[in-house]
Amino acid sequence: MLKGRILSIQSHVAFGYVGGKAAVFPLQCLGYDVDVVNTVNFSNHTGYGRFGGSRATAAELGNVLENMEKNHLLQPERLLTGYIPGSEALSVVLSLAQKLTENNPEIIYLLDPVLGDSGKLYVSPDVIPIYRAMLPLSTIITPNWFEVEVLTDVQMTDVPSLRRALKILHERYQVPNVVISSIPLKPWLLEGLPSQNRPPAGTDTNTEYLLCIASSATDTTKGPQPSAVHTRHVPWIPGYFSGVGDLFSALVLAHFRSSHGSTPGSHLAHAVSQALGKTHAILKLTDEYATTLPEEDRLPTDEELDQKEPERKTRRMKGRELRLVQGQDIVRTAALQDAKMNPWEGFWEE
Amino acid sequence: MLKGRILSIQSHVAFGYVGGKAAVFPLQCLGYDVDVVNTVNFSNHTGYGRFGGSRATAAELGNVLENMEKNHLLQPERLLTGYIPGSEALSVVLSLAQKLTENNPEIIYLLDPVLGDSGKLYVSPDVIPIYRAMLPLSTIITPNWFEVEVLTDVQMTDVPSLRRALKILHERYQVPNVVISSIPLKPWLLEGLPSQNRPPAGTDTNTEYLLCIASSATDTTKGPQPSAVHTRHVPWIPGYFSGVGDLFSALVLAHFRSSHGSTPGSHLAHAVSQALGKTHAILKLTDEYATTLPEEDRLPTDEELDQKEPERKTRRMKGRELRLVQGQDIVRTAALQDAKMNPWEGFWEE
Repeated sequence: MLKGRILSIQSHVAFGYVGGKAAVFPLQCLGYDVDVVNTVNFSNHTGYGRFGGSRATAAELGNVLENMEKNHLLQPERLLTGYIPGSEALSVVLSLAQKLTENNPEIIYLLDPVLGDSGKLYVSPDVIPIYRAMLPLSTIITPNWFEVEVLTDVQMTDVPSLRRALKILHERYQVPNVVISSIPLKPWLLEGLPSQNRPPAGTDTNTEYLLCIASSATDTTKGPQPSAVHTRHVPWIPGYFSGVGDLFSALVLAHFRSSHGSTPGSHLAHAVSQALGKTHAILKLTDEYATTLPEEDRLPTDEELDQKEPERKTRRMKGRELRLVQGQDIVRTAALQDAKMNPWEGFWEE
Repeated sequence: MLKGRILSIQSHVAFGYVGGKAAVFPLQCLGYDVDVVNTVNFSNHTGYGRFGGSRATAAELGNVLENMEKNHLLQPERLLTGYIPGSEALSVVLSLAQKLTENNPEIIYLLDPVLGDSGKLYVSPDVIPIYRAMLPLSTIITPNWFEVEVLTDVQMTDVPSLRRALKILHERYQVPNVVISSIPLKPWLLEGLPSQNRPPAGTDTNTEYLLCIASSATDTTKGPQPSAVHTRHVPWIPGYFSGVGDLFSALVLAHFRSSHGSTPGSHLAHAVSQALGKTHAILKLTDEYATTLPEEDRLPTDEELDQKEPERKTRRMKGRELRLVQGQDIVRTAALQDAKMNPWEGFWEE
């Protein structure tokens, strides 16, 4: 069993599995003591359309962290931060990350820069510079493709722009490990991939795929240099599921081992392959469960119809909450066998 | 694996294991989906002497619960309530319990009336009448001996007064299942117990014991009548541990099966025996771990010395946080074999 202490700072919902509710239980199952600081206390995730509760103010967050520090309870071996509402609260977390990394340069910090998805920002733009200031403190970041674009100001439309974005994260922002958690496998990307990284030829061409890209830099005298890129594709499961990214990030952190003295990137690739395999298995379990529900609980996503009848959406969201408790044996598996990441040979050669 | 949905309403601490942090993970491990409503968000439990964070106001709690209801997310099969700060917040939970039991008379409600311990009240006295109003809504309550005394106004000093207190809870307050989680095995109690309920003769007489008493009433036309009392003693582990009662209550609820068509009290006795065995095993694990710590982290409880040097207490508290994550296999055990409760034959015969 893995072990150690993780400080997790993210949102809390009473019902369902996003933020801390998607991350903490898996980390505990894997053997970690988790210190849980809640940035919001909501009834359910905001995707339901209707929700209630409160956000922790910057002062409240600061108060919790200060008292932990005074009581010598602020000595985690790992730090995990997710959704944090507003720039003031985020600044508190930035200060915390500065303090923790100063006190313990060996701390493993996974920063999930929660900004938006599918081309839409769902936080206030004033948090972006704060996230950029946090990047150099991180050990691993797990943005989706849109968050990479926002953080780097690079639109990824071909392999050179992807390369540019990763270079900016590694070199300008000094991030040792970048995981682009998901990026649609569009033609430019599919064609840019080495053949062994592509989905098997002859598979159903109607299946859409998402690609996960893990890129590790190694320290050199000139600072971190990009060195190893690994990828893996997973079939896209239609429909909107919440908390998937939060679960994925937690699992990456849980399975990450510091990489002294081994092949560059192999530790990141291992952690990502485990996280990807387990997350996909939980997602499949959830999707299979959703299909057993009565039809009115699984009406397809349709913004127009949803607007006319908000209950449609509520019922669908409820039916698609992650089956984490039911799938806990998947999470606890010591190491999945069939979840290899493939090296992208020659990625950095222009 | 057990299954169903539990709504848990209790305190949250970032560091350590009390309230929800002691209850939710075990319930999840045992297969329950748990909806988690936090009544406070503190840095650590108050026993450290120093803590920070905030209490949810009655309005905030109400807001979370209302939105869950509007979204049809308030349909738990079981309800678990623990520490709730102040009479206003407690009144919100009383209304909720009324609504849930009205909507679903089959709901299993475990009410832990958190009032105090060892002769000391640690809540404001104005919550007592509200707890009394909640009692008739409960399926099971898990007070310690002091909380029984406060709720019933009976001082338990001999078997007749114990009988009187239980009778008040069953008959006046209509509680079907009462578990006195712990009561010191003083001479009056030891002598009052049938011989098969006593600790084995010839064991070290210096060992102190706590007794757990489970009493079930059966419905009759005259209302619930006390019918079956079971007990079990556990050796007292010296020192102060937090969250033990919260863990115990969660496990009683997790293992409880409704008792249609079986021997009176047998389902309660089964649940309590499992909860007691598992809680004691976790406590032993915690105690064994604490003894491996450097001496300065396990200085004995001494209020005078603690007052002179608050760090003594902080370090001790930290070393005694429940080893729940490390002991999760104990929690997951389907059913402990060696944890039987003994019937107290003739308890009600005066």
